[in-house]
Amino acid sequence: MFNKRVKIKELLTWEPAQQEVTVMGWVRTFRNNQFIALNDGSTNTNLQVVVELGKYEDDFLKRITTSSSLKVTGTVIASQGKGQKLEIKAATLEILGDSDPEKYPLQPKKHSLEFLREKAHLRFRTNTFGSVFRVRHSLAFAIHKFFHEKGFLYMHTPIITASDAEGAGEMFRVTTLPFDNPPRNEDGSINFKEDFFGRTTNLTVSGQLEGELAATAFGEIYTFGPTFRAENSNTTRHLAEFWMIEPEMAFCDLEDNMNLAEEFIKYIIRFAMEHNREDLEFLAARLAEEEKQLPADKRSDMGLIEKLEFVLNNNFERITYTEAIDILLQSPAYKKKKFQYEVKWGVDMQSEHERYLVEKHFKKPVIVTNYPKEFKAFYMRMNEDGKTVAAMDILAPGIGEIVGGSQREERMEVLEARMKEMNIPAEELWWYLDTRRFGTVPHAGFGLGFERMVLFVTGMSNIRDVIAFPRAPKTAEF
Amino acid sequence: MFNKRVKIKELLTWEPAQQEVTVMGWVRTFRNNQFIALNDGSTNTNLQVVVELGKYEDDFLKRITTSSSLKVTGTVIASQGKGQKLEIKAATLEILGDSDPEKYPLQPKKHSLEFLREKAHLRFRTNTFGSVFRVRHSLAFAIHKFFHEKGFLYMHTPIITASDAEGAGEMFRVTTLPFDNPPRNEDGSINFKEDFFGRTTNLTVSGQLEGELAATAFGEIYTFGPTFRAENSNTTRHLAEFWMIEPEMAFCDLEDNMNLAEEFIKYIIRFAMEHNREDLEFLAARLAEEEKQLPADKRSDMGLIEKLEFVLNNNFERITYTEAIDILLQSPAYKKKKFQYEVKWGVDMQSEHERYLVEKHFKKPVIVTNYPKEFKAFYMRMNEDGKTVAAMDILAPGIGEIVGGSQREERMEVLEARMKEMNIPAEELWWYLDTRRFGTVPHAGFGLGFERMVLFVTGMSNIRDVIAFPRAPKTAEF
Repeated sequence: MFNKRVKIKELLTWEPAQQEVTVMGWVRTFRNNQFIALNDGSTNTNLQVVVELGKYEDDFLKRITTSSSLKVTGTVIASQGKGQKLEIKAATLEILGDSDPEKYPLQPKKHSLEFLREKAHLRFRTNTFGSVFRVRHSLAFAIHKFFHEKGFLYMHTPIITASDAEGAGEMFRVTTLPFDNPPRNEDGSINFKEDFFGRTTNLTVSGQLEGELAATAFGEIYTFGPTFRAENSNTTRHLAEFWMIEPEMAFCDLEDNMNLAEEFIKYIIRFAMEHNREDLEFLAARLAEEEKQLPADKRSDMGLIEKLEFVLNNNFERITYTEAIDILLQSPAYKKKKFQYEVKWGVDMQSEHERYLVEKHFKKPVIVTNYPKEFKAFYMRMNEDGKTVAAMDILAPGIGEIVGGSQREERMEVLEARMKEMNIPAEELWWYLDTRRFGTVPHAGFGLGFERMVLFVTGMSNIRDVIAFPRAPKTAEF
Repeated sequence: MFNKRVKIKELLTWEPAQQEVTVMGWVRTFRNNQFIALNDGSTNTNLQVVVELGKYEDDFLKRITTSSSLKVTGTVIASQGKGQKLEIKAATLEILGDSDPEKYPLQPKKHSLEFLREKAHLRFRTNTFGSVFRVRHSLAFAIHKFFHEKGFLYMHTPIITASDAEGAGEMFRVTTLPFDNPPRNEDGSINFKEDFFGRTTNLTVSGQLEGELAATAFGEIYTFGPTFRAENSNTTRHLAEFWMIEPEMAFCDLEDNMNLAEEFIKYIIRFAMEHNREDLEFLAARLAEEEKQLPADKRSDMGLIEKLEFVLNNNFERITYTEAIDILLQSPAYKKKKFQYEVKWGVDMQSEHERYLVEKHFKKPVIVTNYPKEFKAFYMRMNEDGKTVAAMDILAPGIGEIVGGSQREERMEVLEARMKEMNIPAEELWWYLDTRRFGTVPHAGFGLGFERMVLFVTGMSNIRDVIAFPRAPKTAEF
């Protein structure tokens, strides 16, 4: 048995009393041939390991370099230095793996996030990414915990899908056919019957439609899985592969849906605040440092922790699309012609409008409901007015849309008419329509983009910095 | 607000005392124009709703059919009937959605699992699949809970990958290139630089290699995500798309790895036993019923619950591959020439051999270690003997291999030599080799096929019955 180590995060909670321990980790720094800052990934706080002067040969000490790995046994003693309660007096010191300082790409200095993106396989060993991925973990766990406690079932909806009916975005093809000389039909078209699944298949853009099938049997379900967009968007907010959470609830209307979404977002933020305080404080300091580079008027009004506490302690603003347009039309920004894009009832809001509402007008998360049917999906429930649908988008400061949801159209004849209007092929979605055919129920759900949530909570500004190995146009390294 | 209902699972724990409640769900049966068995997916136990005779028109009562959906308000009263503590005396009864009994495909009779596979969008509404998916949920949640409590970080490793170096199986191509007239290089080959990611990409077969990158920074991580095999296997054990859990631990050897895997499997089974007793008892009865069709010698020795308890209460047997071959060579089965495939040191064990060891010889889960290097992956740690590697497979009764793992080769020169021997392109895996280059550590991990685990715990016999919408050759419906 190799591993009898104590994790540093736990060790740091002990009272120093000469306990014998084994710790293992990677060296962050080694000062004066005497003080090793050791990190094992459980926390950003390094453990100080004190090496007895003169005990080791110089050749050995030279091998204790940044990112070399050590096994240390020793005793836990009160620290003489500042900023730490305890340290380890090393009895034995074993180098598990060397790290040639001439070759190791990350030096104990500040690297740019761009540079670290190229070294995504090693950036986990930095404080910033240590904190980001520990927070990401907590948010993911909190999501499962929240839904489990409410009796929702976790469903794994298919990743490979033959349905391209939803029209949520450009899709990736999944195939085993050869590009050179693919099988063809008599008319010269590609014979996809010969493909692995006997038809054309794509990577899913959403698990919602399948989620509805499960919700109309189990009552309440959620998905948490990868989704894909083959869109050529090289932005700080888009990924070709990202993770999405999609709860779907039977016996649920738009208001229930909003209540759940708000409770959910607060729950997972609170979980991270309780379990990752140290990481969030580190990230808050990082963000404050980063914002010093910005002109004063571009800096955030609130620090990261303050922002998260504000979200926890305030109700999300709830307004209709119609009210949102009115606010925009009355705004000084509109009157001073500061918006680039048109503001008019019936036109989709642009990012600048959403940011105005969230960051300038309400200064908190806003739920916008009842959008014009023209720019919403076929499955959203038609309102009495015949013009708007029971949609809801949650807009977050600094991020924009973080949740998109709706009450679903449960009325068969309304749904069929809408599908026809929008050229959605009903015959391909026979199974979806069956839920309306047999015991249909009012139901609703939403989708939360996980990486956008991680962005919001960590205060990072590029979505490629909150997923381990980002996938984007021309980007599939690692 | 639409949803103020009480879930039936919770309601059934109440003491009947004339409480007013609202329940909603789907009708399972309606007897004598008086007794509705209502199900909302929270449990297989239906709630009896009692309708006052003569209160409703016949035309209304005729619409209360199997799978029609109802909203019922009423009072909770002690049940007069047998087998239930309480029932609802309906005050108001609202039909939310009709279900035409002439058209609804599932009748209140026993359907074959094959038939239900064709109706995967509705099979959630049966007792069998209700239980299967509630157990599946519990196992998934228990997995997250187990690792979270141990301080492992949940990592999302990429689904789309440019690495095809692992050789774990046939892969699906992911592309946005057109089959008709794809871009070509001067030499006529396809120009994949024009593809979305600027190179060829595939669906991942494993997140392990990326998992190792994270483990060698965070110490202990796990993945839980979809993985893919483009193999033309139409069996009861294989899927083209399945979910896998892959923990990876730094500072960990083969023994630590086995200990963790055994503790993990027991933990998640215990969680299901504690949280899904009713579902497991239903599935046990289902299995017993199914096995009645089999000749006596093909039936299981133990019932489902008994089997799970046995696994919880006994240590997994741990033997080396060499010992396993010896046992097989000494077995009556071998001496009577009952094995179809060769038994010899150096030859991979076939399913019949694994089943003999697990089901006949040891009658419990068996961990087989130290396999000949010839049929194991390049990253497994070479043992001192130069012939075997520090691999471990866990074999489960009735399922076969449920876990495959190993200590990883952390020694750079040994790993490089092995990769060369096996024609694994080192230059493509530069990032993987960096973990050995910079502070390498002993580390280990394993993969658990989630659906195989669900099969084992639910006693179902076809893997397509434990995932919502199975993907297999020529199968991508829904």
